[in-house]
Amino acid sequence: MSRKPNSEQRRAQIVQALLDTMAEHGYEKATIVLIARRADLTPGLLHYHFHSKADILLALVKALAAAAQQRYLALAQNTLDADQRLKAYIDARLGLGEGADPGAVAAWVVIGAEAVRQPEVRAAYQHAVDTEMALLRELLSASLAAQGKITANAHALAAALLAMMEGTFQLASAAPASMPMGYAAPMAAQLVRRFIDAEPPA
Amino acid sequence: MSRKPNSEQRRAQIVQALLDTMAEHGYEKATIVLIARRADLTPGLLHYHFHSKADILLALVKALAAAAQQRYLALAQNTLDADQRLKAYIDARLGLGEGADPGAVAAWVVIGAEAVRQPEVRAAYQHAVDTEMALLRELLSASLAAQGKITANAHALAAALLAMMEGTFQLASAAPASMPMGYAAPMAAQLVRRFIDAEPPA
Repeated sequence: MSRKPNSEQRRAQIVQALLDTMAEHGYEKATIVLIARRADLTPGLLHYHFHSKADILLALVKALAAAAQQRYLALAQNTLDADQRLKAYIDARLGLGEGADPGAVAAWVVIGAEAVRQPEVRAAYQHAVDTEMALLRELLSASLAAQGKITANAHALAAALLAMMEGTFQLASAAPASMPMGYAAPMAAQLVRRFIDAEPPA
Repeated sequence: MSRKPNSEQRRAQIVQALLDTMAEHGYEKATIVLIARRADLTPGLLHYHFHSKADILLALVKALAAAAQQRYLALAQNTLDADQRLKAYIDARLGLGEGADPGAVAAWVVIGAEAVRQPEVRAAYQHAVDTEMALLRELLSASLAAQGKITANAHALAAALLAMMEGTFQLASAAPASMPMGYAAPMAAQLVRRFIDAEPPA
């Protein structure tokens, strides 16, 4: 074992402090001093656990992706049915249920914006996007195949659904009052369902 | 007339300089000095035309919204057909055609992220979102009505389509290599078309 459990806890505490600080001040203004204060640790201790702020951010991206994955697996664990698994995925990402985490959603939006400019953030963001695209494409292909439909458009459909999710997070964080309540998960599910129903048979 | 044409030109020049500076450095690091340098003007002259950096940003949000509106109107001007106008809207926002502007898209993503935290940016962003939602809802209602369908879901459908557009901009700016080429406009049009086709009659 290369790290003590205590060290993992400390790292998680620092990552959470970055998330909280970013949600309030943004990434740019989230200095090591501010993050340390939020974590109730010394800046020196932060530097012991992470080389740089960018390093903490990478750990945060991984933690957010892992948490999202856990939500999906928790909802999908009792079914092998392709349509049920797809529905579980959409509910896990877009539902207003217990697993929803506004702070994590806002942090993800900030990370997405940082990814536009900062190469290190972009690499981590793109890796998360690639992982999500692969999962989504697999779920959609399975659902299409279960209905006896062609799967040629599964990739483009995955892209459109991922875009809808990213945009839902953006709008939920920056313009919640402009959007109808609870539209995202039911509408995403219905759009996908009707798209699949209208695909030609394989 | 409260402003000379020359003053309007100068303001547009400063707004463009903010857009270019944000695309490179982000909003936080886009100082008045950097913006002035990019515009080839003195910082004093920037302060003559705008009270603050936030003021320039508000002008930028308005300019981006106006440019997007112009693209749609240019594509929709020759038709009164509801479906054609909806298609023109989707092509104007998501098409890879002449009107597409990667710099403007990247700036919009940064503005969306700033809107999560900064109240002044949020107000301008929300106003743009409200305007877009109203236009989209009207276009979708007209298309639904033209097919003899109920329009009760036009609002939620508008929200889902707007989310898809915002997410497309986000992914195009931060993870372009992860997405299939040119998926957005055709897939958005097809998802909406199949949704409308499956709606119950009015």
